[in-house]
Amino acid sequence: MQKIYIKDLSQHVGQEVTLSGWLFNKRSGGKIKFLVLRDGSGYLQCVYFKGNVSEDVFNLADRIGQESSIEVTGKVKVEPRAPGGFELDAVNLHLISEAHDYPITPKDHGIEFLMDNRHLWLRSSKQVAIMKIRHRIVKAIRDFFDERGFTLMDPPILTPAVCEGTSTLFETEYFDLGKAYLTQSGQLYAEAGAMALGKVYTFGPTFRAEKSKTRRHLTEFWMVEPEVAFNDLNADMDLAEEFLEYIVQTILKEKQEELKVLERDTSILEKVVRPFPRISYDQAVEILKKNGVDFQYGNDLGATDETIISNQYDRPVMVHRYPTAVKAFYMKRDPENPDLALAVDVLAPEGCGEIIGGSQREDNYELLLERIKEHNLPQEAFEWYLDLRRFGSVPHAGFGLGLERTVGWICGLDHVRETIPFPRMIYRNTP
Amino acid sequence: MQKIYIKDLSQHVGQEVTLSGWLFNKRSGGKIKFLVLRDGSGYLQCVYFKGNVSEDVFNLADRIGQESSIEVTGKVKVEPRAPGGFELDAVNLHLISEAHDYPITPKDHGIEFLMDNRHLWLRSSKQVAIMKIRHRIVKAIRDFFDERGFTLMDPPILTPAVCEGTSTLFETEYFDLGKAYLTQSGQLYAEAGAMALGKVYTFGPTFRAEKSKTRRHLTEFWMVEPEVAFNDLNADMDLAEEFLEYIVQTILKEKQEELKVLERDTSILEKVVRPFPRISYDQAVEILKKNGVDFQYGNDLGATDETIISNQYDRPVMVHRYPTAVKAFYMKRDPENPDLALAVDVLAPEGCGEIIGGSQREDNYELLLERIKEHNLPQEAFEWYLDLRRFGSVPHAGFGLGLERTVGWICGLDHVRETIPFPRMIYRNTP
Repeated sequence: MQKIYIKDLSQHVGQEVTLSGWLFNKRSGGKIKFLVLRDGSGYLQCVYFKGNVSEDVFNLADRIGQESSIEVTGKVKVEPRAPGGFELDAVNLHLISEAHDYPITPKDHGIEFLMDNRHLWLRSSKQVAIMKIRHRIVKAIRDFFDERGFTLMDPPILTPAVCEGTSTLFETEYFDLGKAYLTQSGQLYAEAGAMALGKVYTFGPTFRAEKSKTRRHLTEFWMVEPEVAFNDLNADMDLAEEFLEYIVQTILKEKQEELKVLERDTSILEKVVRPFPRISYDQAVEILKKNGVDFQYGNDLGATDETIISNQYDRPVMVHRYPTAVKAFYMKRDPENPDLALAVDVLAPEGCGEIIGGSQREDNYELLLERIKEHNLPQEAFEWYLDLRRFGSVPHAGFGLGLERTVGWICGLDHVRETIPFPRMIYRNTP
Repeated sequence: MQKIYIKDLSQHVGQEVTLSGWLFNKRSGGKIKFLVLRDGSGYLQCVYFKGNVSEDVFNLADRIGQESSIEVTGKVKVEPRAPGGFELDAVNLHLISEAHDYPITPKDHGIEFLMDNRHLWLRSSKQVAIMKIRHRIVKAIRDFFDERGFTLMDPPILTPAVCEGTSTLFETEYFDLGKAYLTQSGQLYAEAGAMALGKVYTFGPTFRAEKSKTRRHLTEFWMVEPEVAFNDLNADMDLAEEFLEYIVQTILKEKQEELKVLERDTSILEKVVRPFPRISYDQAVEILKKNGVDFQYGNDLGATDETIISNQYDRPVMVHRYPTAVKAFYMKRDPENPDLALAVDVLAPEGCGEIIGGSQREDNYELLLERIKEHNLPQEAFEWYLDLRRFGSVPHAGFGLGLERTVGWICGLDHVRETIPFPRMIYRNTP
């Protein structure tokens, strides 16, 4: 027997059907009980009239608690006032497993309690909406690159080399080979991929053992990193801009229902269309000064600085050409000013901060080797990376987008902890 | 200026175009040089006639070594004998970066040498074909579940609990919270997801610190794990069967060119259509005995056993209902014989072994608790998992498919090390 899901009820109007799921909530009106069923695909109000069902069924409908698993049978009716547009004129109710004292009730709970019960909290309508939007963002990201001829390259998670200092790395013993580190970025591997396949993207979990307890940090988060041979910084910015527009417009088009559950102000998202403003680091510093910030030229932008800058615009803003000192060793220097790196950060509106960081990469063997030495990186571990400049080096560029910050921004959430099913933070690695 | 890729040349026949890429190989014929350009999207033979180009260009075409990065300009001609169907009547050649003594030549190299140079080996035509098939398999996997109403649930990589013994786990210090372990499976989390969203799948890297040095083992591999509420073992097998057929038929349809590069016998893959044979463990043991294997009833099937069984069939075979002793604690017991677990393994043809392992899960609170105790698992760490049976338990089932074994099978490879860009094995975690 084909299972029937709530989202497909439009095909069963007037038919008697049986659906399985969980009791989301209920209310009573004397001779009538309203049971709202959830099955993961939607919500359905099931109406139990005392006269239409057996006494046992009516009493059962009265008795069972929130999140009991049940099977309901009844006739599908169009009901424009109901969420989803349908209602079930119920004739039967079968109990699969009775639940009592479900911990998460419609009343307010503290965040630590909800996080301890994350495995149950995921059943609430807001969390379901976030997970569906997250899924659709992941699909949009993959579709975007797949449709544009990129090849997926899954980079290794266990890496031998040290990318940007060991203090923020998780380490593990790797058999007789010494220590291995959990990856912070697949970029260096993506560069090897771009030389083989022209255009590639990586998309997987990355790790930072940073002791940052902020609303923007997870220790484990997903990052997508495209890398394109023969792209320069401008082409990189073009790609980032088209990419972000595509993601936001796809979600606006396909996830209206979930955005409504989250009470998201979508008018802000509607403005995310190309072109995005592009300003240099120097111009960004000017903006900060005009806004009374005592900012030291040469420093990196902090979270507050980013918010002030992004508040000047109604869409994401791209800040490019940062001082080399605050950027990574592999970034190419601006030929017009070697103190600047050909880097770009994209700052999301509404104080969400940096969601994309990218750059054109150093493609000159000697200059790259110099940077590796300057940064006291172990040259031997980077010989393979230097090979990419020894054999057929080409200009190339890429960026990384943090999935959870993007989900948080689009969903309008205060904290990234709700953007991933089981968040990992400095003070939490359970459940 | 829009970049032009080799795969799009059919739109530029008769036009003069410029393409960028790398010198894949070349041959000479006196007054004519044939340079094969690769750009990641395809291969293009560029013909340099001495009379058509400057002496400098002709000498350059003669001089540059394999994997030099170049820009070629010329007129696109239809040439049915050429790979891809086009040829370039070249008028110019621009050198971007000259390569000499590229380590990987068309001659044979030892596997350790190739693995040491994996970042370069990825540029060879066979590795490019494998990576493109891998990408298309990943997309087929995601499309399959997305089209069927599943929600993606990215499970955590850093996990506190111990799933199946600590000896095969990679561990890391997690701030002040003690040790965390790299996940071996997202299944338990997927079960929480299925109770929230009905049908979910996880798809991410998983880890086994096993000291297995075989052609089937990686320490880091990707696994996709669907989990469906209200499914039993039969529905689980139906799903596995439909899923495998979909993947194989999609690759046959869309990746003929790459399969040809790999010299894959596709007639074997064409037979992968439903229904697949379904045999019980007991029947599998009978087959082994008939084939002269001295097999002890109650043991798990070894690699050789699996090959003997799968050799009886021309498509994947599903072996179900294993002795509980050789299967995981969370599997439901067969109501008709409590010594058997409602488990299924799918064995791929051609000696590829198990590519899917699945089961119906124990949904009874008391029985699950009993199993946790029997297996000496720390109950406290599983309280959240037990909650899934406390609050609205339902029958549910799922399975895991190993991506790399699937890629290896479809590509017809001897060893899984070529199925992932940068393989991690007991004796290798570089480059």
